[in-house]
Order: sequence, then C-alpha cells, then structure tokens
Amino acid sequence: MSVAKPAVSVLGLGMMGSALAAAFLKAGHPVTVWNRTAAKTGPLVAQGAEPAADVAGAVGASELLVLCLTTNDNVRGILEPVAGSLRGLTIANLTNGTPAQGRELAAWAAGHGARYLDGGIMASPQMIAGPDAYVFYSGDPKAFEEYEGTFGALGGARYVGEDAGRAALYDFALLIGMYGMGIGTMHAFALAKAAGIPAKDLADPLREWLNAMALFITDEAEALDTGEHLTDVSSLAVNQAALPNLLNTLSDEGIPTEFFQPLERLINRAVEEGYGADGLTRLPDLLTPRR
Amino acid sequence: MSVAKPAVSVLGLGMMGSALAAAFLKAGHPVTVWNRTAAKTGPLVAQGAEPAADVAGAVGASELLVLCLTTNDNVRGILEPVAGSLRGLTIANLTNGTPAQGRELAAWAAGHGARYLDGGIMASPQMIAGPDAYVFYSGDPKAFEEYEGTFGALGGARYVGEDAGRAALYDFALLIGMYGMGIGTMHAFALAKAAGIPAKDLADPLREWLNAMALFITDEAEALDTGEHLTDVSSLAVNQAALPNLLNTLSDEGIPTEFFQPLERLINRAVEEGYGADGLTRLPDLLTPRR
Ligand SMILES: NC(=O)c1ccc[n+]([C@@H]2O[C@H](COP(=O)([O-])OP(=O)(O)OC[C@H]3O[C@@H](n4cnc5c(N)ncnc54)[C@H](OP(=O)(O)O)[C@@H]3O)[C@@H](O)[C@H]2O)c1
Ligand SMILES: NC(=O)c1ccc[n+]([C@@H]2O[C@H](COP(=O)([O-])OP(=O)(O)OC[C@H]3O[C@@H](n4cnc5c(N)ncnc54)[C@H](OP(=O)(O)O)[C@@H]3O)[C@@H](O)[C@H]2O)c1
Repeated sequence: MSVAKPAVSVLGLGMMGSALAAAFLKAGHPVTVWNRTAAKTGPLVAQGAEPAADVAGAVGASELLVLCLTTNDNVRGILEPVAGSLRGLTIANLTNGTPAQGRELAAWAAGHGARYLDGGIMASPQMIAGPDAYVFYSGDPKAFEEYEGTFGALGGARYVGEDAGRAALYDFALLIGMYGMGIGTMHAFALAKAAGIPAKDLADPLREWLNAMALFITDEAEALDTGEHLTDVSSLAVNQAALPNLLNTLSDEGIPTEFFQPLERLINRAVEEGYGADGLTRLPDLLTPRR
Repeated sequence: MSVAKPAVSVLGLGMMGSALAAAFLKAGHPVTVWNRTAAKTGPLVAQGAEPAADVAGAVGASELLVLCLTTNDNVRGILEPVAGSLRGLTIANLTNGTPAQGRELAAWAAGHGARYLDGGIMASPQMIAGPDAYVFYSGDPKAFEEYEGTFGALGGARYVGEDAGRAALYDFALLIGMYGMGIGTMHAFALAKAAGIPAKDLADPLREWLNAMALFITDEAEALDTGEHLTDVSSLAVNQAALPNLLNTLSDEGIPTEFFQPLERLINRAVEEGYGADGLTRLPDLLTPRR
C-alpha cells in the first residue's frame, strides 16, 4: 500500500529552484512549477512537472509552496497579489534572506492564515538530493513535522527552532565562514599565480591544509564556550609576527592586502590588550561589542 | 646492521622547535639543543638531548642545523656571530619568513660556505611527526637529498624547488588560505554568540560545511588554469545579492562588517565589469594587477 506523496508547488526556477523541483519530482511528488521567465519551466515539464500559468495557479495547485527567488523582496513581490488565497497553505521559503526578513515574512504569512517555514539551503544546486546536502528550517513546528518527509527529497532536513529567523542565522553563520574561506583561497591562488605556480599544483595541498585546519573548529568552540583561550598551538603573538610577512609577500607580488588589514588590526589590538599568549580563539569575542 | 642516523642541532625551542627536537629524538637521531632562554632545554634533555651552552656549541655539534625562531631577523641575529664556523654545514631554516628572506638567507649562507634549505612547516606543534604533518622545503637540492630521510622524522618532506624562496611561497599560499578561513570562522562564532547559540552547536555544521565547500577548490583551480569562469553553481550576481543580507545581519548583531567590505567591493566591481554570470573563481584574477 502506498500513500500518495504531498503535492508541491515550486515558485522560482533559477539554478536552485530548478534543482529543488527536480528533486521533488524524482522523489515522486506531484510538482507544479512557476517562474517569472516562463521558458525555464521547460526542462521540468519534460520531467513531469505541471506548469502554472501564473503565481495564482501555482498557489492553487498545492498545499505546500516552496519558494526560491533571488531575494525576499522578490518573494513578497509575488505573494502580495495572491495574499487572499494563502489561508491554510504552508509556505516554505528557501530564498536566501536575513533572520529579520524571515521573522517579518512569518508574521505576514500568519496574518493571511498561512503557516510559514524559513529555510537555509546548505548546498549548491548540484548537491541537492545528494548525501551532503541539507537545509536548515525554522518556524512553524507543526508545518515542519507534517512536511519533514517531503523536505527529505532535497537532502537532510534540520529543524533549528520556532523562531523563523533561526534558519537564516545558522545559514549565515556557515555562509560567512564560507566567504572567509573564499577570501583565503582567492588570495592563495592569486599568490601562486603571481609566482608562476599553476593553480592545479596548489589545489590538493590547499584543500588538505584547510581540511586539517578545520579540525581545530571543535577546539575553537570549546575555547569560546569556556572562555579558556591560552594555547599550545599558535599564539596571537606568533601570529602577530607572522602576518606582516604574509602581507608583505602579497604586496611584493602586487596583490592588495586590504582583505587582511582588519585581521592585522584585530590581532594587534588583542596583543595590546594583553592576550598575546592566547590563541586565535580569543578573536571572535573581540569582534562583538563590549558587554 | 644499523646505520647511524645523522646528528641534528635544533636552535630555538619554542612550541614548534621543541616539537621538532622531540621528533628527531624519537626517530633516534643524536640531538643537540639550544635556546636563548636556557630553561626550555629541560624537557628535551630529559628525553635524551644534549644541551649546548651557546650557539657556537650547537653549531659545532652537528652537520645539520635546524632553526625555528620567531622571525628570520632572529635567525640572522644568532647566526651572524658564528658565520665563520658554518662552512660545510647544512642550515635548514624552518622559521616562518618571506620568499625574499629565504633567498637572502640562502645567498648569505652560500657566502659562508654553508648549504641552505628553507622550510615551511604545515602543521601545529602537536601534529609534528603525525600522519598529517609535512614541511615544504626549497633550496639546495643535494642537501635535501642527503637529509630527506632525517626530515622524515617530522612528517612528510615535500621539496618544491631550487629557488630557496619557493617553500615560503607555498607555505604562505596555504597560510593566507587559513587566515581567510579563520576570518570566516571567527565571524561565524561571533554571529552565533550574538544570537545566543552556543559555539559547540555550531562547530560540527561549520566544519562539515567548510569541508564540503573545500571540495570546490579543485574546480576553482581548473577554472583558473583554463580561464573558464562561467558557473552552474553560484554566480557573482547571486553572491552580489546575498552578501549584503549577510553583512546587514552582522551589523544588526553589532558585529563590524569591515572584514568583508573588500570582498563586497570586489564582487561589485566584477559584476560591473560584466562578469555577473561567472562564479567566484573569477575573483583571484581581479586581485592581481592588470596585464
Ligand atoms: N545557487 C546556489 O548555489 C545557492 C545555494 C544556496 C542558496 N541559494 C539561494 O537560492 C536563491 C535562488 O538562487 P539561484 O542560484 O537559483 O539564483 P538564480 O539562478 O539567479 O535564480 C533566481 C530566480 O529568482 C527569480 N526572480 C528574481 N527576481 C524576481 C522577481 N522580481 N519576481 C519573480 N521572480 C524573480 C528568477 O526568475 P527569472 O528566471 O525570471 O529571472 C529566478 O527564478 C537565492 O536566494 C540564493 O541565495 C543559492
Ligand atoms: N606554532 C605553530 O603552530 C607554528 C606552525 C608553523 C610554523 N610556525 C613557525 O615556527 C616559528 C616558531 O614558532 P613557535 O610557535 O615555536 O614560537 P614560540 O613558541 O614563540 O617560540 C619562539 C622561539 O624563538 C626564540 N627567539 C625569539 N626571538 C629570539 C631572538 N632574538 N634570539 C634568539 N631566539 C629568539 C624564542 O626563544 P625564547 O624561548 O628565549 O623566547 C623561542 O625559542 C615561527 O616562525 C612560527 O611562525 C609555528
């Protein structure tokens, strides 16, 4: 005996929305698709999706609406005109947005009788439905419970709390981590290139090194939660001595150092404030305003 | 039949130098140790090292000198007075320094009849001699060949070329990658803390996420070597839309955005220059001066 899988309408068929819709189709859900530029429905219709002529059509077709547009202003823009038809539906908004926007949209949806979940997708479109993909969800707990299995089609479904802004918070914490890593890798490759080293020669050592360094994140978390920052690994004083060497080398190669100047200033400040023997784990607390 | 292992003098017994000396001892090398602050020789002498009363004593005790001080100025500072006794010896300088300093020291050593290798240690002291530790070496190829086995006591020994500055270049490329990742993780933890999320709750997702994102380094290298930056993952235009959300969220939580403003400007510039459909792999080339 098989239970019919819930119908899903996917609104927004950019790179990510298309991957989401394809994953729902593959998992056996009836899928309705809508995109501002209608041509993008083509490949999904070929895979079995139903095209909706307009937003109202997509909203009328399923009790679960999954949205994935560029910004939350776009989300508001397409939902406002159909606000009267949202009662009883569940909105799962997987558009990248701020915690504050997530909370605002949750309140707005509640005002129109809809349940709201905000989602943060921790994957590229290619990773969707694969073993490493997952999505943070927050907001209406009953809605999450009801659709947890449906969301499973996309990858892991991690519920992080009733506050609709929380998924974006987790998402952003990981994304800011990723942007930092991206700043690092782009400078690593720029430096290699300036010295005539092909990027492919650097790729494996760089990836291995970052994976090895990422192992320290667990210790970093413990230091932060306990406030014990004394280190036997690499002190702020040692980093204070090493960083200018690095930045001078960037300069020597014609690469600007501006991406790392705030770090240099923060380390100098930490040492000035007497934290020279502490590890880099001292720094996050110095980023936040004084209590 | 066992062949006697080469004697090694280790100069500089900070956190790293002590780990190096201990690893040589453990591998069965006769080890002489010297440190400016003599008390730090204690634990190593207890493990079987010979303490040298002064730099000259350490230089006279072994044909291989391994140096690990805070800076290369310190290295020059302790070697200058004994320059006359260096003829025929091999200097392996594992102090963090710039490629230019490595080349200068190589020339200086050659002027005194010594062979010179510059090294970049890709490990924390705790990792030394473990499976993930390795050191980049560059400089005199014969010296590397002769002591490759000895260096193996510390972890992997990767020779990257005759140019004495090359080890530091590789080292710095990986270090700048690590500092970038550190900028990312410190902001991730600061954001979590501001929102009341304990660091330990963030640690596993953050590490997993950064490991997953590090897999793209291989694609990034290919894009850089081929110049093909069009992406089906995440375009500069999408990142241009997403990054302000992140930075506003940092601001909302009282965390300064200065570490990421250069990135925001670089992405804006890339989009303005018509690269909006390209991936982030477009950025390293925009860091370097125009050809
Ligand atoms: N790509 C990734 O790796 C990734 C990863 C995690 C999260 N995300 C997030 O997922 C969301 C979508 O990203 P994406 O990569 O799919 O971007 P994309 O390929 O640029 O697609 C953007 C989508 O938004 C639609 N859209 C934009 N403005 C609109 C408006 N005013 N009214 C109606 N529709 C509008 C576009 O419609 P048209 O086709 O008509 O332009 C398109 O469907 C973003 O919030 C992004 O941050 C992406
Ligand atoms: N720790 C790491 O994770 C790590 C990783 C890779 C590379 N490195 C590099 O390894 C080197 C040493 O780092 P570390 O962590 O061992 O630092 P450390 O614990 O601070 O030790 C510094 C060493 O340098 C000596 N020194 C400093 N100034 C000197 C001077 N003017 N004359 C003579 N000796 C002087 C110190 O002697 P005293 O004991 O007398 O002060 C001590 O032996 C640095 O270049 C660092 O960048 C470290």
